[in-house]
Amino acid sequence: MIQPGPSTSGLATRFRFSSRGQQLIGQEMFRVLDRAHALEGQGHRIYHLELGNPRMAPPPEILEAARQSLEGQGIGYAPMAGIAELRSALATRYAPLLQERVTESHIVISPANLLIHQFLDLTCNPGDRVALFTPAFPSYWAAAAHLELDVVPVPLTERDGFHLSHQAIEAALAADPRAVVVNNANNPTGAVYDPAILRHLSARCEEAGVWLLSDETYAELTFDGSFLTLAAPCAGHVVVISSFSKVLSVPGFRTGYAVAHEAVAAKLALSNSTLYSCLPGFTQQGCLAGLSVLDRYAAEVRRRNARVTTACHEQIHRSGLLRSTRPASGFYLFVDISAVGLDDMEFCRRLLDEYHTAATPGRSFGEAYRSFIRLATCGTEEDVLEGVARTVAFAHRLGGCRVQAA
Amino acid sequence: MIQPGPSTSGLATRFRFSSRGQQLIGQEMFRVLDRAHALEGQGHRIYHLELGNPRMAPPPEILEAARQSLEGQGIGYAPMAGIAELRSALATRYAPLLQERVTESHIVISPANLLIHQFLDLTCNPGDRVALFTPAFPSYWAAAAHLELDVVPVPLTERDGFHLSHQAIEAALAADPRAVVVNNANNPTGAVYDPAILRHLSARCEEAGVWLLSDETYAELTFDGSFLTLAAPCAGHVVVISSFSKVLSVPGFRTGYAVAHEAVAAKLALSNSTLYSCLPGFTQQGCLAGLSVLDRYAAEVRRRNARVTTACHEQIHRSGLLRSTRPASGFYLFVDISAVGLDDMEFCRRLLDEYHTAATPGRSFGEAYRSFIRLATCGTEEDVLEGVARTVAFAHRLGGCRVQAA
Repeated sequence: MIQPGPSTSGLATRFRFSSRGQQLIGQEMFRVLDRAHALEGQGHRIYHLELGNPRMAPPPEILEAARQSLEGQGIGYAPMAGIAELRSALATRYAPLLQERVTESHIVISPANLLIHQFLDLTCNPGDRVALFTPAFPSYWAAAAHLELDVVPVPLTERDGFHLSHQAIEAALAADPRAVVVNNANNPTGAVYDPAILRHLSARCEEAGVWLLSDETYAELTFDGSFLTLAAPCAGHVVVISSFSKVLSVPGFRTGYAVAHEAVAAKLALSNSTLYSCLPGFTQQGCLAGLSVLDRYAAEVRRRNARVTTACHEQIHRSGLLRSTRPASGFYLFVDISAVGLDDMEFCRRLLDEYHTAATPGRSFGEAYRSFIRLATCGTEEDVLEGVARTVAFAHRLGGCRVQAA
Repeated sequence: MIQPGPSTSGLATRFRFSSRGQQLIGQEMFRVLDRAHALEGQGHRIYHLELGNPRMAPPPEILEAARQSLEGQGIGYAPMAGIAELRSALATRYAPLLQERVTESHIVISPANLLIHQFLDLTCNPGDRVALFTPAFPSYWAAAAHLELDVVPVPLTERDGFHLSHQAIEAALAADPRAVVVNNANNPTGAVYDPAILRHLSARCEEAGVWLLSDETYAELTFDGSFLTLAAPCAGHVVVISSFSKVLSVPGFRTGYAVAHEAVAAKLALSNSTLYSCLPGFTQQGCLAGLSVLDRYAAEVRRRNARVTTACHEQIHRSGLLRSTRPASGFYLFVDISAVGLDDMEFCRRLLDEYHTAATPGRSFGEAYRSFIRLATCGTEEDVLEGVARTVAFAHRLGGCRVQAA
């Protein structure tokens, strides 16, 4: 995956990094972000389509609650599992969606990206297999590589709109994995999977004794407003993770949560304590305030995303050179660039340098996707539309070159 | 160390945790905090001496900057190594303390507690030895256990005031460790080590090809205002970590930093990206504002700590039953309870239940310290003095009982 990490030049060779230290991939889009910042430092205006960094104003209730907490007791340490009020409010929110009882004891607050790592760390030993349906979010690959797990990529089919299928589920389980990761609604494809197939996946994992991580970060951002969760705290084998970052437009709060069996939740809390002690209390107070307006706010976000993401999809479609499947959720387009004759890294590098538009190379989502890029459509509408227009313009220039060269 | 973690009752036995998942210790003081919160939930007033949770008001500049950033662009993602302005300001701060050049490329922002884990993860393989001078901060033990490292405890001598000695350094290196951890000024003993011995430790580690983690979280809180850092970004083998939590009274900001060789700093940034993407930008903006007033503010904190911590030490000393070495820094007392006939766990449990005073059991700092407890003196002065008075009262009741029983 991408580059193996920084050079150790100048560091005496007897100070070696550990084996895990050599398996750090990071997230390519954060490297793109760093390069974009460098260009901005030189005075260029950059169109940011690399990160899912929502630029809609968050609900004012969140900022107000965070401010109040900052002025009060919110700058002290908080409980390792997260503040009780937020865990309890989340339990109340999930209760009507589930067939079973869910309480505070099933909820742990932690950054969603870290929860991926924590889940794999708690469930898998080095050398164990973890099955990913691909294209798959870079953090799954990065966490698995760092933990020295063996990733089994299970490709979903582009012509089926990258949807989860029975065949893909059986292919994943045939590899005898210790854990399976599913991401619905999907980043980067925008696909929303069939509820019956998702439930079948969960049942098959339980039957096979396989842990299941259900990443539902975008589950409340389906354009049609449907919200399916695989949370099943009694079953025990499913760990649901989600985040406030996308649905409440507060990525910088770095706050997410897990819904899991209470034994798993207790382990996750202990993992929090071991790794970083606790999260800030005031950001959690902010998210608690956000929960109370989430339904109304998420409806606005869905409407905005449906409009902008679909408009971008159509712009891509009309290019005649680039293509993406029609998204049903979220704010990403997974764009097939195979017609233009550049690989993803080169395309993204030149798109940034020459068109000042930052995008994420497809291989971040699996080695097989070197002829794809991901565009995030959650920036300011003007920036996003301009960024997509520039991407299309770049493709046309390349397309022209390619035709001339032929 | 303490309890092995939550029970897995109710979780089907075929869903096993990983080997690392079974090695999670967490931090006992966060479990004490959780139990203390439960008692508070029942309406009791609890005296919190378990956590180093400073209750002095932080510099108003920090909260103001964080608030402004929250209202601006501070709720988006930030660079994986931390915001450039803060890294650059820290480089400027360290430059006059060092013999060598230090720049932004040597600084990475991350929670200090997590940096302990990140350092050990990057430098040590499972089964490698890591030497700790004991008593030692619980997070070193917790991170080492989770990473399946072999801890070599090197006890410092109580009658020498738990100071670092040449013998201790040679004992640590004789174990052929991959890494050594040193913590100056020290938590829990309040000892400030001899600069010449610290420099000798660094030189011996370099000579022996051994990584050195220098945890300097309390280095700016020596009562006499001396500040020694082992930072040596060119040497490469020393990773310095520190935190804004204690010196700026903002533990809930969860913001710390490392000063290291640029190859190590780059690895740490990649570790950030892999684990949790990035930290909030607005807390970093707050810390940046805090840096500009740190010298003035830290002087106040030192004066307050010198007065309160010394007063508490004297109260302990006068008890005739409990004793602690005279602290020269910070806000902890490592109290020898061997005269009262209870072990640390039982003493802390009953101190909380019967005297509503929360303290940390000594074994959190090493198995050998079952006849010690740690008292944190950084709460509100009234609470701290009352908590220490209650601890002494409990000891007297026990001491009395013991004499009667004899």
